[in-house]
Amino acid sequence: MTDSTDLVPAGSFCARLIDACTASWDAYTRHPFVAGMADGALPQPAFRYYLQQDYLFLIHFARAYALAVYKADDLEDMRSAAATVSALLDTEMKLHVQYCAGLGMTEAAMAAVPEDPACVAYTRFVLDRGHSGDLLDLYAALAPCVIGYGVIGARLVADPATRRGAGNPYDAWIAMYSGEDYRAVVRKSVAQIDRLAARRGGEARFGSLAATFRLATDLEVGFWQMGLDAAARN
Amino acid sequence: MTDSTDLVPAGSFCARLIDACTASWDAYTRHPFVAGMADGALPQPAFRYYLQQDYLFLIHFARAYALAVYKADDLEDMRSAAATVSALLDTEMKLHVQYCAGLGMTEAAMAAVPEDPACVAYTRFVLDRGHSGDLLDLYAALAPCVIGYGVIGARLVADPATRRGAGNPYDAWIAMYSGEDYRAVVRKSVAQIDRLAARRGGEARFGSLAATFRLATDLEVGFWQMGLDAAARN
Amino acid sequence: MTDSTDLVPAGSFCARLIDACTASWDAYTRHPFVAGMADGALPQPAFRYYLQQDYLFLIHFARAYALAVYKADDLEDMRSAAATVSALLDTEMKLHVQYCAGLGMTEAAMAAVPEDPACVAYTRFVLDRGHSGDLLDLYAALAPCVIGYGVIGARLVADPATRRGAGNPYDAWIAMYSGEDYRAVVRKSVAQIDRLAARRGGEARFGSLAATFRLATDLEVGFWQMGLDAAARN
Amino acid sequence: MTDSTDLVPAGSFCARLIDACTASWDAYTRHPFVAGMADGALPQPAFRYYLQQDYLFLIHFARAYALAVYKADDLEDMRSAAATVSALLDTEMKLHVQYCAGLGMTEAAMAAVPEDPACVAYTRFVLDRGHSGDLLDLYAALAPCVIGYGVIGARLVADPATRRGAGNPYDAWIAMYSGEDYRAVVRKSVAQIDRLAARRGGEARFGSLAATFRLATDLEVGFWQMGLDAAARN
Repeated sequence: MTDSTDLVPAGSFCARLIDACTASWDAYTRHPFVAGMADGALPQPAFRYYLQQDYLFLIHFARAYALAVYKADDLEDMRSAAATVSALLDTEMKLHVQYCAGLGMTEAAMAAVPEDPACVAYTRFVLDRGHSGDLLDLYAALAPCVIGYGVIGARLVADPATRRGAGNPYDAWIAMYSGEDYRAVVRKSVAQIDRLAARRGGEARFGSLAATFRLATDLEVGFWQMGLDAAARN
Repeated sequence: MTDSTDLVPAGSFCARLIDACTASWDAYTRHPFVAGMADGALPQPAFRYYLQQDYLFLIHFARAYALAVYKADDLEDMRSAAATVSALLDTEMKLHVQYCAGLGMTEAAMAAVPEDPACVAYTRFVLDRGHSGDLLDLYAALAPCVIGYGVIGARLVADPATRRGAGNPYDAWIAMYSGEDYRAVVRKSVAQIDRLAARRGGEARFGSLAATFRLATDLEVGFWQMGLDAAARN
Repeated sequence: MTDSTDLVPAGSFCARLIDACTASWDAYTRHPFVAGMADGALPQPAFRYYLQQDYLFLIHFARAYALAVYKADDLEDMRSAAATVSALLDTEMKLHVQYCAGLGMTEAAMAAVPEDPACVAYTRFVLDRGHSGDLLDLYAALAPCVIGYGVIGARLVADPATRRGAGNPYDAWIAMYSGEDYRAVVRKSVAQIDRLAARRGGEARFGSLAATFRLATDLEVGFWQMGLDAAARN
Repeated sequence: MTDSTDLVPAGSFCARLIDACTASWDAYTRHPFVAGMADGALPQPAFRYYLQQDYLFLIHFARAYALAVYKADDLEDMRSAAATVSALLDTEMKLHVQYCAGLGMTEAAMAAVPEDPACVAYTRFVLDRGHSGDLLDLYAALAPCVIGYGVIGARLVADPATRRGAGNPYDAWIAMYSGEDYRAVVRKSVAQIDRLAARRGGEARFGSLAATFRLATDLEVGFWQMGLDAAARN
């Protein structure tokens, strides 16, 4: 954890979760798929397959936040999670569908793509941690996605080697996850996990939460790799 | 089922669930608490206690719809349930808090009232049916509340004996649940259960769903009675 | 917490949960229903209704331990909870059915009795705490039942005023819950909650767990009262 | 569905689920990993990795049946699922550990192996179907494993090309899943799904259940492939 300390402040619970699995975290946030977006060399089929699966991913992500509404202990946490459900179902998914339409992929086509095992593994692992544990376990399983994308976005725009602008077909992705809107999402998420950890015994549970965070991070690695593998198959 | 056939059309799945438990349904929709709102004779402490518990009820009701988002099989059902979660947490609860503030009850005070066993029984029964069954089981457990309030509202405004206007302290309640907004909620809910029943084998499961609906209705009777009992205790 | 310190050692997490709700705990463990079993004056219809509801209670109790198997983080906790599920479904329920048969109540008759709202409230509250929280939340909700019956049994046999032997129709109940087998169940449960509290941040969560324990205790009060009320109705 | 009609009778709900995904079913039951067990040519490292993951798989399988206990509507189904939980945790896992010990793999070593994404994907998919749907959805997700192993076992022993006896290191596996004990498990499972389908609207839900069954079957393909891939990596 070096280049994104304003997003994930040193000493925060999330920073400590990251520090407990640096090899996995680097494999995820510095994955060749990410490097390929940075320099624009990522094969288009890899990105298209990623987008198709991400459509399905968002559905299960929304389900995870719905589970968080159910599991929350107070109205503030309920409302926060409910706002994320609405944002995902009403805004993110529609933006995603629009974006994909611009690349010639219709929503009906994406809904018909079989879900990749890498997508199944990550999303259902998150949901199972939510059901078996409490809200903190659930958020620890969600954190690699929410926070990792922000960390990746911040790193890419900070890196002079990143190719920006119309010459890079992945510039819109980089812009979204480095943008102020998304940074605010990450900061809120980091702060919420700090609050939950204080309230729900995060210290005493650190080992278990770190194991959840690490496995979720490893499954994110699998999600990037899935895109490269799909491109290699075709 | 006689006086609200435009809300719950004869032959709809909900109408059949009601017809399968008419004694319970009448005990609920014609409860003395309801009669007391109709003629204005309901003791104020009964209504105030009901409102306090209803505040807690709404929280668990929102949790039930969050569970419905999780359990839904398609985006349309997810979005429908998510919209209800938002409506409950962002609109209904705030209206409820405003209304109660007008009666001198603060939100902090309501949040501090111990939850009545009658509220626990109904809300947690609904959630358990949701967890143990599928979305149709969950909606069958929620239906007595959603639909029953609409049926009660429609009956009260249709009954010339109902006392309307400023002379009846419960007129606002009657207006809300007989209003077009709420009627639209009921109609949508009835239609959704019809669709779900068709898709998820409602016919074959009628006996089980009717048992869920009847017990939920009985627990609604307990929710009304809770208000009268609280007033009698003080 | 005075008279059962060998069952619930001072300083154990359970002892502290009890100390945090002494009024509720006394209302439960010294309820008139309990006093009526001690002196044999409890009306038979109250006990019979209690037994009928306890049949339904045991089913949901077994479901709660099945949920504990699902939620457990390691094989030891899974096996412990699974052994309780089997004990409840294969041994306890059959003993219960036999015992009730001796009083002229068949299993079919008990299965046909409508579930009392007091039974619904307690059992479904436990299940909901299990779903919304983690294994420690679930066990905190189950503890008043498991431990309270042991505390009651220990107190009754220690009290010289308790009427023992064939002259007291409730002697078998007293014997069961004061017996060494049940005491072993209680001690194991107390020790398990200590272990879980250490592992899952019980200290930091004490306020929330105490609230769960208190409400569950209050709902146990309602379960005893249910028997008396049923007898009074008839 | 040809060579195992005594296990999965034509016309049974399971037979129809299989017939609705024959390509996936063949990819699973005739996978090269299976062929390699039949002729003994499967690389040992592939089988060892499979056994290590199967240890973790059994844990989540037991959790799935615990969820089935929770979700069951009657005592018969509760007891049936609880017996499977006990059999898995108390018998199957201990046999598995003994068997692996004979191959030089200790339980501690297996518990320390990171869970493969293919294992995560299948097990958590099953659990999620259980939480989102009802008992029938859960059993439809479990069926490819329970029934598929029986079908494979039956086919291998019926095939004269299968190498039996001490010359085939996988003969014990073939013997177990073609043995009468396991055949009884399969028949019971097929019958239970028939009963549940009748009671819970299986006809009307066939498309949805077939989609669950097919995806679970595809994830079983991934579980076999995981073993071959692991061997190829080393």
